[in-house]
Amino acid sequence: MASKRASKSLPATRHVVSINDLSDTDIETIFDTAKNYLKQLPDRHYSYRIGRSTDVASNHVLASLFYEPSTRTRLSFESAMIRLGGQIITSADPATSSAAKGESLADTVRVIANYADIMVIRHPRDGAARLAAEYSPIPVINGGDGSHEHPTQTLCDLFTLKQKNKRLKNLKVAISGDLKGSRTIHSFVYALARFGATIVPMPAKGMELPAHVDQRLREEFRCHMVTVPKDSGEDASIDALYVTPDEPHQQSLFSGPEIERDVGRDLGMLEKKVDALYVTRFQKERWADKDQEYPRIDRKFLNEPKYSDASVMHPLPRVGELDVAFDSDRRAVYFEQAAYGVPIRMALISLLLGLKNKSLHRFAGGFEPGKQIVYDQPRSLGLCCTNSNCIVHDPMEAQSVRNKFIIVQSSGTPRLRCVYCEREIERFVVASRKNKWYATDTASLLPTTDQGLKETVLFADEADAQAAGYHSRRAAADPRPAQRAGGAKP
Amino acid sequence: MASKRASKSLPATRHVVSINDLSDTDIETIFDTAKNYLKQLPDRHYSYRIGRSTDVASNHVLASLFYEPSTRTRLSFESAMIRLGGQIITSADPATSSAAKGESLADTVRVIANYADIMVIRHPRDGAARLAAEYSPIPVINGGDGSHEHPTQTLCDLFTLKQKNKRLKNLKVAISGDLKGSRTIHSFVYALARFGATIVPMPAKGMELPAHVDQRLREEFRCHMVTVPKDSGEDASIDALYVTPDEPHQQSLFSGPEIERDVGRDLGMLEKKVDALYVTRFQKERWADKDQEYPRIDRKFLNEPKYSDASVMHPLPRVGELDVAFDSDRRAVYFEQAAYGVPIRMALISLLLGLKNKSLHRFAGGFEPGKQIVYDQPRSLGLCCTNSNCIVHDPMEAQSVRNKFIIVQSSGTPRLRCVYCEREIERFVVASRKNKWYATDTASLLPTTDQGLKETVLFADEADAQAAGYHSRRAAADPRPAQRAGGAKP
Amino acid sequence: MASKRASKSLPATRHVVSINDLSDTDIETIFDTAKNYLKQLPDRHYSYRIGRSTDVASNHVLASLFYEPSTRTRLSFESAMIRLGGQIITSADPATSSAAKGESLADTVRVIANYADIMVIRHPRDGAARLAAEYSPIPVINGGDGSHEHPTQTLCDLFTLKQKNKRLKNLKVAISGDLKGSRTIHSFVYALARFGATIVPMPAKGMELPAHVDQRLREEFRCHMVTVPKDSGEDASIDALYVTPDEPHQQSLFSGPEIERDVGRDLGMLEKKVDALYVTRFQKERWADKDQEYPRIDRKFLNEPKYSDASVMHPLPRVGELDVAFDSDRRAVYFEQAAYGVPIRMALISLLLGLKNKSLHRFAGGFEPGKQIVYDQPRSLGLCCTNSNCIVHDPMEAQSVRNKFIIVQSSGTPRLRCVYCEREIERFVVASRKNKWYATDTASLLPTTDQGLKETVLFADEADAQAAGYHSRRAAADPRPAQRAGGAKP
Repeated sequence: MASKRASKSLPATRHVVSINDLSDTDIETIFDTAKNYLKQLPDRHYSYRIGRSTDVASNHVLASLFYEPSTRTRLSFESAMIRLGGQIITSADPATSSAAKGESLADTVRVIANYADIMVIRHPRDGAARLAAEYSPIPVINGGDGSHEHPTQTLCDLFTLKQKNKRLKNLKVAISGDLKGSRTIHSFVYALARFGATIVPMPAKGMELPAHVDQRLREEFRCHMVTVPKDSGEDASIDALYVTPDEPHQQSLFSGPEIERDVGRDLGMLEKKVDALYVTRFQKERWADKDQEYPRIDRKFLNEPKYSDASVMHPLPRVGELDVAFDSDRRAVYFEQAAYGVPIRMALISLLLGLKNKSLHRFAGGFEPGKQIVYDQPRSLGLCCTNSNCIVHDPMEAQSVRNKFIIVQSSGTPRLRCVYCEREIERFVVASRKNKWYATDTASLLPTTDQGLKETVLFADEADAQAAGYHSRRAAADPRPAQRAGGAKP
Repeated sequence: MASKRASKSLPATRHVVSINDLSDTDIETIFDTAKNYLKQLPDRHYSYRIGRSTDVASNHVLASLFYEPSTRTRLSFESAMIRLGGQIITSADPATSSAAKGESLADTVRVIANYADIMVIRHPRDGAARLAAEYSPIPVINGGDGSHEHPTQTLCDLFTLKQKNKRLKNLKVAISGDLKGSRTIHSFVYALARFGATIVPMPAKGMELPAHVDQRLREEFRCHMVTVPKDSGEDASIDALYVTPDEPHQQSLFSGPEIERDVGRDLGMLEKKVDALYVTRFQKERWADKDQEYPRIDRKFLNEPKYSDASVMHPLPRVGELDVAFDSDRRAVYFEQAAYGVPIRMALISLLLGLKNKSLHRFAGGFEPGKQIVYDQPRSLGLCCTNSNCIVHDPMEAQSVRNKFIIVQSSGTPRLRCVYCEREIERFVVASRKNKWYATDTASLLPTTDQGLKETVLFADEADAQAAGYHSRRAAADPRPAQRAGGAKP
Repeated sequence: MASKRASKSLPATRHVVSINDLSDTDIETIFDTAKNYLKQLPDRHYSYRIGRSTDVASNHVLASLFYEPSTRTRLSFESAMIRLGGQIITSADPATSSAAKGESLADTVRVIANYADIMVIRHPRDGAARLAAEYSPIPVINGGDGSHEHPTQTLCDLFTLKQKNKRLKNLKVAISGDLKGSRTIHSFVYALARFGATIVPMPAKGMELPAHVDQRLREEFRCHMVTVPKDSGEDASIDALYVTPDEPHQQSLFSGPEIERDVGRDLGMLEKKVDALYVTRFQKERWADKDQEYPRIDRKFLNEPKYSDASVMHPLPRVGELDVAFDSDRRAVYFEQAAYGVPIRMALISLLLGLKNKSLHRFAGGFEPGKQIVYDQPRSLGLCCTNSNCIVHDPMEAQSVRNKFIIVQSSGTPRLRCVYCEREIERFVVASRKNKWYATDTASLLPTTDQGLKETVLFADEADAQAAGYHSRRAAADPRPAQRAGGAKP
C-alpha cells in the first residue's frame, strides 16, 4: 500500500474535471471505445438477452461521492462500472456522510482513495472537483460541480451529435435556456468549439453565457461572433453566432495569430438550418427568482423550417421547458442521449483505469495543456477568487485551498483565472512581497515566471494592498522610506 | 441499443404491478422455482456455510427505485438479485434523486431502463407502478404503491401459507387490522380468493376493506358472503366471511353464470378453526387520526380455541399491534415469512428476466387477462379518477398520464375502474364527442367497442358536461338546435 | 433455511461488539491475516494496477445497517467485503428505513439476517450493537454504538501502532481531546492496557475518561496510576499515567492477586518520550455546549521534544483540532491509519465468516471470557440502567430489552454493569421476590449464583422497593407480619 514510490516513468494520475482536461484525441479514443461497448449492451428493442459482457474492471471499485441530488449521473456511472465487471461503493446523501460531521472534502477524498480505485464526485460548489483531484491519488471524475462543468454529460452530448450527424465539424447547434447556470452548457460549448461546430445561443432572459465563458470561446477557442442581421427573419432572440474557425484546434492560453475569416462560410452558417437544438432545464435550485419567464420548446416552436432536421437534445431532467407531447417526434433524441451515458462512462472508466491495453498508451500520452503560469499563495494572503460559490469560500475547506490563479495572457492585459472554478478576474493590483510595493499596471509588472510569482502577492484593489501594509510603487520610488512605513496610518 | 426493432414473435415485457398480473400457473411456477432456490440458501440453523449458489443473473442489473421508506422490501430484492449472481443500483431516497429536481416518474423510468435490466419501484401514490410499467421497456415490479397493492409481499404470504398447510384451498384465513389502507391486504385477499381460501375480515374500526375490493371479491372472484349468526359465539367483531367457490378460478370482468352455493360447505367454513391469522400494522403515515383504537394481538387473544392451530402471520414491520412476547410461540411464523422474501424474489426476478430456460415458455405464455375494454382520453378531457391519491393527480405526472378506465360490466350497470389505482366510479355521465350530447343512462349508452369509446367522453356529472359545452341527449332529441347551443346559459 | 438444527459441535455465532469480545490471540490472528491482504491491495504510490485479489467471500453478503452518519466506516467495510469477492446491501439512512415506520432494532436484525451473511451496525444508542447481537443468528460487528465502543476502529489503531513500532508492549501512548464521549477512545484504552502500552490521558476540560472506564482499567486490566510530579516539567494538564503491568493479561471480572509494582519501570514510563499521540474530534453531536474550549494540536504543540518521535494518530474525521499544516510531517500517520481500514476489516470479515480455513479453528476457539454472573429480569421489573442514552431506554425497544446486569465483584462491594452499554451502578438495593424483603447490604446479600439471582430483584433505592410492595429486611425480621403487609400505606 505504501511500500514503493512511483517510478518516474509511470503516467501521472489522470483526472477529468473539465472537458478541457481531455485532448481531441482522448475524446476520439473514448468514442471509439464506447462504440465497442455499445455493441455489447442489451438492445432494449430486441430482447432482454444482453450481449457478451466484459469483466475488465473485475477487482476494481468505483466510489460515488455525491453531495447533491442525482439519479441519472450516479446510476449511469454505477451501471457502467458494473457492466465493466467492477463494483461500487456509494455515498449519495450528504446528510448521512461524514461531511455532516464537518469533514473537509480534502480529507474525505484522501480517505476514500484507500477504499476505491476511481471516484466520481458531484458537489454544489464550483471547482470542488478540482480540489478533490488535487488531493486524490486515484482518478477523479467530475460528475458536476456547481455551475462550473459537467464533462461526462458533454461526452454523451457530443457522442449523440456524432452518432446522428456522422461528424461534428460545420454543424450548427442552438443552445436554449439557462446558459448561465447550466454546467452542462459550459462544458458543451467548449467541446463544440473545439470540434468545429457553430454555436447559436438562445438564452432565457438574463441567463446569457457567463462573461468568462464567452471570452474563452472567442479568445482561446478562436470563435468569432457573426451578428444576425435584424431583417434576416431569424428569431429576434438570436443576436449572434459563435462561428468556429475552419481549422479548429485546441485552445491556447496565449493569443495566437489572428485567423482569417472566411466570409462565405460565415454567411453559410447564418443561413444553414439548425442541426441540433439543445434544451436546458431552468435550474431552480440556483436562482432566487423561481417564477422567471423561461422559453418553452414544443411542437409549434419546432415547426419552423429551420428546425425541420434538428435533433432535439436535453441533458434531462426536464421540468416543463420541453413539451412531453414532442417525445414521439423522430427529432426527439433525448432518451437516446441518456442511453449513451452507460457506454460513454464505461469507456471513460476503463481508459482512466488503464484497463484497455490497446488504448492505454494513446490515452496515457493524453492531453498536454500548454504550459500554464500559476500564481499560488496561501488562502489567507491577498486576493481570493471573487466567485462566492467557488470552493475556496467553503468554510470547511479553508485549510485545504490556496489562492491559485492561472495567468491568462490571451488579451492585452493579463487576467486571473481561478484554478478551481475558472472564473476570471480582470482588475487587480500586483505587489512585491520583498519590496512591499504594489502597482496597478499589471500588464507590465505581473511576473511571467514561476519564480517571479512566488515573490508576488495580488490584491483586489489598492485599499486592500494598503491595509496589508503595502505602498504604492510610485511612492516606493520616493526616496523617503520612513514615510512608507507609516504611510498607511498618517 | 436501438438498432433493431422487436420481432413480433418475441414475448412482450412482463410487469408485475398487481397480483392479478400473474396467472395461477405463473404463481405456481414461481413457487416451484423458489423452492429450488430455498435449498441453495444458507441454513441459519446449521452453519454459516452457504449452499451452491447460482449465477444465472450475472451480467444483469436490478434498479431499486424507492420513493418511500423501506428496509425489508428493498434489501430483500437486492439480496435476491445478488444471490442470483446479479448486481444492483439503488435510489433509496427521493430527496437525493432527480425527483427532487421535479422530474416526472415517466421520464425517470425511461432513463433508468437504460441502466438496468429490471426494476423494482415503491411510490406513495396509488397506481404509480402501473404508470412506470407503461413507460418501461424493462420489467417493472411493484414494491408497493400507495395503498393499492404489494404483490411480491403477497407471493411471500401465500408461499408461507402453502409451506405450513401444504395447500391453499379450503383454508380459513383471518385478516386483522387496517384492511383499508394496507396495500398488502389488497393483494393478499385477491390471491386467497383465487386459490380457494376463505377470508375472515377482522378490521379495526373504520378500516374495513375498501368498497372496490369488497365488490371485486364478490363479483369477479365469485366469493359469497356468509353471515355469522349472532348467537354463534364468534367474536362480535366478525360479521361475515368471504367463502370462495369450490372451484376457484381466475377473475372475470364480466358477470358469469351464478355459482350454486354449497350450504354445507358454508356451514363448515363457519365452524372451522382459523388456519392463519394475518395481522397488519396501523399505517400511521396514511391516517390523520394517529391515536385511533387498534386491535392488539397477544397470547391471551390467541388462547381462544379457534386459533389453537393458526399460523400467525405479519408482513412486518410491526409497531405494537402484535405482542413481542408471542414471538417464541410455535404458531408465530412471521420471521419465517420474512425469510421467504429472498427465494420468492429470486424466482420472480429470474423468471421475469427469462433466465430459467425451462420455465421461460410457461411463464412467457403467462397470464392472459380477459379482453378488457378501456376508455382512454387525455388528462385534460372529462372525468378523472376520483381517488385523490391516484398517480393521475400528481402534478409532476400531469403530462404523462391519461384518463384511462377499464369498463367493468360485472354488475348490471357499467362501472369505471381506473387503470392505474383500480378504484372504481359508479356514477358518471356519458357523452358523444361528435354529437355533443350527454346522457346519464350509462347502462344502455356506454359504447362497448374500442372505436365507440374513442368517440366518447365521460363526465363526473351533468353540470360538468354542460360546462364543457355538451347538452342533454333528451334535449338533443328536441328539434330546436339553437336552443341547445345556448342551453347552458339561458 | 430452517430445516436442520445446529449440531452442537459447531461454533456459536461470534459477534464483535466490544474490543473485549476478542481475545489477544484473536487480535493477533486478525493482524496476521490483515498483513496478507495488505500485500494484495493496490499500492497507490506505485501504479493503478491492483494485485491479486481474493474471492473467498463470493456468495456472501454483508449488510450495512447505519442509523447514524458515516462515510469511512461504512465505505471501508463495504470496500473490504468487495475486495474479498463478496457483495453488499446497504441501509445508510434511518429516515428511509423501516425504523422510520417505528420498527424495533430487534425485529429489523432478525429480518436482515435472512438477507445477508454478516452485518455491521452503527447506532446512536449505547449498547445497541449488543442488543442486535442478542437477536442475530449471523455475526454482528459493532460499527460504533453511541459513546460506548468502536472496536474495528481500535483494530486499525492498534495495527497502525504495531506497524510503526513493531511492538505494543511498553509503548507510551497519549490520548487527547474528548475522552468522555469518544467511543473510539473507550475501545482503544482497553486494547492498549491489554497489550501492555502505557496510557497518558490528556482530556479536554470536563471530558475526562468516564468513571466506569477508569475503574475497569485499574481493576480489570490491572493498570496502576503513576502520578506526575508537579515539578516534572510535564504539561500541567497531565496528572497521571495508566501504567500497565509488566505481564499484561486479559481482564478479569474478579479481583485477582495484587501485582507488585515495578517502581523503576514506573519512573521509566514517566520519563519516556511519547510513542504516539492519539487526537480525537470534539463530538459536537454529543455535547450541549458546542463552543467549548478544545485542545488544538499543531506543529508548535508537537515541537516539544517529548513528541519528537511520536506518531500522530486520529480516527478521522477531524474538524479543526488537528492542524492541516501538519499533514506533510513525517509523524502524521492518520491517513495511513485510515488506509488500514480495508485490510483489517477484510481480515475480520473473513475470519468471522470462517472463510480462511487455516485460521478458522484458532479463531473459533476464540476468546473465552471469565464466567460472568448475570442478573436478568424483565424491563418492567425493578432497576433499569441509569445511562439515559442506553438502548434499554429507547421506546421502540421496550419489548426487546431486559434489565440485565453483569455482577462485578472486582472491588469490595458488588457493582452492576449493564450488559448493553457497560455503564456501572454502584448503589442499589437487593430484594427477594419470594420473601418480599429488600436490603441495602448488597455485599453480603446479593446472590452469587444464577439460581439465586432468578429469585432476586434489584431496585434503585429503598423508596422504589417500598413502592413496589417490598419491605425492609430488618422489618421482615420483626415477628408481626400483619404490620408488614400494611406497612407501605399506614
